[in-house]
Amino acid sequence: MNENAIGTEIYELAKELFPICRSITGNGVRHTLNIIKRIIPELNIIEVPTGTPCFDWIVPKEWNISDAYVIDPDGKKIIDFKENNLHVMSYSVPIREKMGLEALQEHLYSLPDDPEAIPYRTSYYVERWGFCLSDKQRNTLKEGDYQVVIESTLEPGHMTFGELILPGETDQEILLSTYICHPSMGNNEISGPSVTTFLGKWLTGLTSRRYTYRIIFIPETIGAILYLSRNLDHLQRNVIAGFVVTCVGDNRNYTYLSSRQGDTLVDRVIQHVLGQIDPNYLVRNFQEHRGSDERQFCSPKVNLPVALLMRTRFGEFPEYHTSRDDLTVISPEGLFGGYDALRLCIVCLEGNRVYRNSITCEPFLGSRGLRPDVGGVKTLGVYFRHISNLLALSDGKMDLLELSQRLQVPMWDLLKIVDVLVLKKLLE
Amino acid sequence: MNENAIGTEIYELAKELFPICRSITGNGVRHTLNIIKRIIPELNIIEVPTGTPCFDWIVPKEWNISDAYVIDPDGKKIIDFKENNLHVMSYSVPIREKMGLEALQEHLYSLPDDPEAIPYRTSYYVERWGFCLSDKQRNTLKEGDYQVVIESTLEPGHMTFGELILPGETDQEILLSTYICHPSMGNNEISGPSVTTFLGKWLTGLTSRRYTYRIIFIPETIGAILYLSRNLDHLQRNVIAGFVVTCVGDNRNYTYLSSRQGDTLVDRVIQHVLGQIDPNYLVRNFQEHRGSDERQFCSPKVNLPVALLMRTRFGEFPEYHTSRDDLTVISPEGLFGGYDALRLCIVCLEGNRVYRNSITCEPFLGSRGLRPDVGGVKTLGVYFRHISNLLALSDGKMDLLELSQRLQVPMWDLLKIVDVLVLKKLLE
Amino acid sequence: MNENAIGTEIYELAKELFPICRSITGNGVRHTLNIIKRIIPELNIIEVPTGTPCFDWIVPKEWNISDAYVIDPDGKKIIDFKENNLHVMSYSVPIREKMGLEALQEHLYSLPDDPEAIPYRTSYYVERWGFCLSDKQRNTLKEGDYQVVIESTLEPGHMTFGELILPGETDQEILLSTYICHPSMGNNEISGPSVTTFLGKWLTGLTSRRYTYRIIFIPETIGAILYLSRNLDHLQRNVIAGFVVTCVGDNRNYTYLSSRQGDTLVDRVIQHVLGQIDPNYLVRNFQEHRGSDERQFCSPKVNLPVALLMRTRFGEFPEYHTSRDDLTVISPEGLFGGYDALRLCIVCLEGNRVYRNSITCEPFLGSRGLRPDVGGVKTLGVYFRHISNLLALSDGKMDLLELSQRLQVPMWDLLKIVDVLVLKKLLE
Repeated sequence: MNENAIGTEIYELAKELFPICRSITGNGVRHTLNIIKRIIPELNIIEVPTGTPCFDWIVPKEWNISDAYVIDPDGKKIIDFKENNLHVMSYSVPIREKMGLEALQEHLYSLPDDPEAIPYRTSYYVERWGFCLSDKQRNTLKEGDYQVVIESTLEPGHMTFGELILPGETDQEILLSTYICHPSMGNNEISGPSVTTFLGKWLTGLTSRRYTYRIIFIPETIGAILYLSRNLDHLQRNVIAGFVVTCVGDNRNYTYLSSRQGDTLVDRVIQHVLGQIDPNYLVRNFQEHRGSDERQFCSPKVNLPVALLMRTRFGEFPEYHTSRDDLTVISPEGLFGGYDALRLCIVCLEGNRVYRNSITCEPFLGSRGLRPDVGGVKTLGVYFRHISNLLALSDGKMDLLELSQRLQVPMWDLLKIVDVLVLKKLLE
Repeated sequence: MNENAIGTEIYELAKELFPICRSITGNGVRHTLNIIKRIIPELNIIEVPTGTPCFDWIVPKEWNISDAYVIDPDGKKIIDFKENNLHVMSYSVPIREKMGLEALQEHLYSLPDDPEAIPYRTSYYVERWGFCLSDKQRNTLKEGDYQVVIESTLEPGHMTFGELILPGETDQEILLSTYICHPSMGNNEISGPSVTTFLGKWLTGLTSRRYTYRIIFIPETIGAILYLSRNLDHLQRNVIAGFVVTCVGDNRNYTYLSSRQGDTLVDRVIQHVLGQIDPNYLVRNFQEHRGSDERQFCSPKVNLPVALLMRTRFGEFPEYHTSRDDLTVISPEGLFGGYDALRLCIVCLEGNRVYRNSITCEPFLGSRGLRPDVGGVKTLGVYFRHISNLLALSDGKMDLLELSQRLQVPMWDLLKIVDVLVLKKLLE
Repeated sequence: MNENAIGTEIYELAKELFPICRSITGNGVRHTLNIIKRIIPELNIIEVPTGTPCFDWIVPKEWNISDAYVIDPDGKKIIDFKENNLHVMSYSVPIREKMGLEALQEHLYSLPDDPEAIPYRTSYYVERWGFCLSDKQRNTLKEGDYQVVIESTLEPGHMTFGELILPGETDQEILLSTYICHPSMGNNEISGPSVTTFLGKWLTGLTSRRYTYRIIFIPETIGAILYLSRNLDHLQRNVIAGFVVTCVGDNRNYTYLSSRQGDTLVDRVIQHVLGQIDPNYLVRNFQEHRGSDERQFCSPKVNLPVALLMRTRFGEFPEYHTSRDDLTVISPEGLFGGYDALRLCIVCLEGNRVYRNSITCEPFLGSRGLRPDVGGVKTLGVYFRHISNLLALSDGKMDLLELSQRLQVPMWDLLKIVDVLVLKKLLE
């Protein structure tokens, strides 16, 4: 499938998922996972009951919402959940009341610095209710009686997440984790599961996989903590590299955000891939810039090698956590860029091995068609240079990733030549 | 006590110590130490006899001086020790003679490049006599008979130094060493003992000390060698960080001069403190810029972790080693700056520990009042960020000093929060 | 002997060697080695028969040539081996034929981008014949019958190389390797053996040598592989530093090309020497810029510490591998520069030891005349500073090379002072 076709497919999925009102629990999550399962039927959907302890936390009550609105003193519906699900603070308790403007103001959230945008707000662990609206609209509200309605439920139920495990030749695992807990936002929500779904589809279709792949679609923070509480030993034993997939849909930057340790395999592979496809990629670090589930995966007692390859990082694009982060922020090109960069990371991880030149001194390449037979020319062509470099640097210690990085050559170009040299028994 | 008050107090002490004629032995040293003992009565004053061997050296004869002058052919006293004690070369032997200008010139020292300044000269280990004067004055000397008088003694006696040991919870020691052997100079003499005296007073007043403090007031070079010859084993076993305190009184720069090893605890703590209080601080290294008692403390067979935090380094300010380094070069602000930077180093050393997050994944901070309960805002406030950072980076390996340095946050700010997190059993 | 005299002597040798038609085997190599043996009679000349296996290669047939030319349709000799031996492709098989221009063109080599230059071409391992000529001349060739003559032989014989071993106090060896297989070219051929011959002469004349020196004159690539196949174990056990000597005759740049490991003793010594004599020297690395016998010496299974100190690197000067790389590209000054830089490397290797200050604290230098006896002056003179630095930094761990590099002082200056300090029992 070509580049445009994949980008478009991912964007179509994003458009379908965008309108759903997700939170950290509830039917929005289930609906989202069912759409993803249509594309990768091997996905398991797992439910964990409210009250389940997970390390320092417990699974909260399940929240669902059917409608919410505010009617102004003139009887006009002025804030309407059905128009934009960001209008309701996530986890708002039900309410049906008349109140004056002053009382209502206590429950309104807006952004004076970004007056056209509806902010995204949550209150998962303190029971309250609230409406979010643009500051511009807020300033038009006049005195009088407002009718306030939130038709929600907050009751014992479940937390829901999706898990796809694709076995490989070894038990060693590569983890892809993305979150499905924000309502209608583009780059900082729906780009992640959309790209991850298509990475899962591509991996499912591979005829062989060296590593086992663990792909999870979870609510952010509490979902990651819950997942870790159920799988910590296994993950610590097996995961050699992990990615949190988020903010992979806009077409502005590429960004690398390091793991806590900063120099793990996944850090090296992201730096190699981004260095080759976009030398101007941005570098961010765990201590100053962490913000998504790397906070859990890299926390000191968990300590997994997990890093992020993003387009524009959460918090660094102006539309972040507002209604302006909509389907115009992401694009088929942006999503394909995120997808393909992560795919290349996986290609590099799969192909990364330590090779050793099996001949003492240079092999006699002429007889094998691996060197031109007229000598004296000033420079070798790229193909012959790659051959020479692989043989000269494969010392049984340096892995192919480091070798590619030193040569500033894409590892995926060298991989094709490695196969030839292994076949001819020049590398082992 | 506030900043101004401490700076003024240190300056008052400096003014009192300034006029005394110190050398590496003699009553000037004793007088100086007695004034310091008035402020920190716990100070021990120790006398070691002439002839005592100390490694490759021996304690020299004791030198004392009561008067010295030159009377010109017109009968006018033109060079007078009582006007400025720099006029006499330190350790000058006694003399009372009439001589012509040519013979006198052999014993005069001046600075053609700095014609207004009286230079500072010594001859501790070759018996000679000399007068120092401004080059301007020297050029006015006319032919004729000069009366030359130095009323000094150079006889078996003692070398004198001061020692203050403040026990702490552990035997591990922090060393503060300053010198008391130069006559009337400001930044490169009297700033050191003045600041060190007030650090000693502050440390004496602390209700608890983790480390033992060893504070010594010694003649430079020979005094340090003597002190090391008496205490080497103990110091090598116990000292974890040491400071030579000198040139801490002018208000121009901050300077860090590294230990010989360059990466010891004291190097790290000075770099952290100066990086926080003055990002433009100057960096100097042992191999090129050493000059005071770090030469002994860091010599290969001694090898203590000793470095320098200075204002403007010896040799780098124009008044250095001349009469121009007087009480106008130092100031209450300059002295307070040196004092406070060294005090912060000690605060960091006392507080530096390796912490470990005791919870797997992030703790549930909301219930403990350590995180805002409305989610979705773009950035956390500083207090919440510090909490998050301490928990995210305390991995049981990195000490608080490195953690502060990575975050580019003053360690003294984090220390307050560490106490809260330890109390709430989140850090251990 | 002074600088000019040595440079001129090396240049005279280069002029004598230049006209000889060398290849990887044959009488040109023998002739060259015999001239060198005139200057260093200790040189052994070794012959290895055709067909001898060496790792993945075998010694090829021996090639000799007496004449070669092309006569144009007008009967004029237009390409003549006797005018310039680059006109014949090295290892051309014999031929004596008449042919049309089209057939001849198949066997002609020229450089459209460098139309005045005759290129250098070889075909060691595929039997063919060819003529090289300037592109300008090629474009004047007209239709008609050409008489083509190459009077060469390609028959079982020998590969010839020279070896000079100069025993030292230890079995540890320093290797100097240069090649003798190109016909008439200046910087990229004859500078190497000419400079190496005079380094050999200098080393032969030394009254004592700490290390054993192994100096070899070999055909490039196949010669290095052959030499390694006969000496690999011994070299791996004994060689502590090696140099490939090539491109050491022009007077443009100095260039350092690193070993594969990049941080061996020879890398450090070249960086020190070039840093002192030419701070603008060029840095090249093995992975991108290798090209001569470091390809064999540093190949993964051989792994010797071998690097290059060159003037302008092969491939980086415009005359490279053409008839323009003639005796005007090299000069007495250029050759002396290459010679002397390599000589200084050897001086540093011979003198590099780990010293330890034998006194605790600073020694009392005044009594030994190693410090001025008037104190208080702002800065010490260079001689006293060197003494102080050697004593302050000789910790029994850092070698003199690292110490010199840290101080940014030529090691050959410090060596003279080291001798004094060892004599006075201050260093051990």
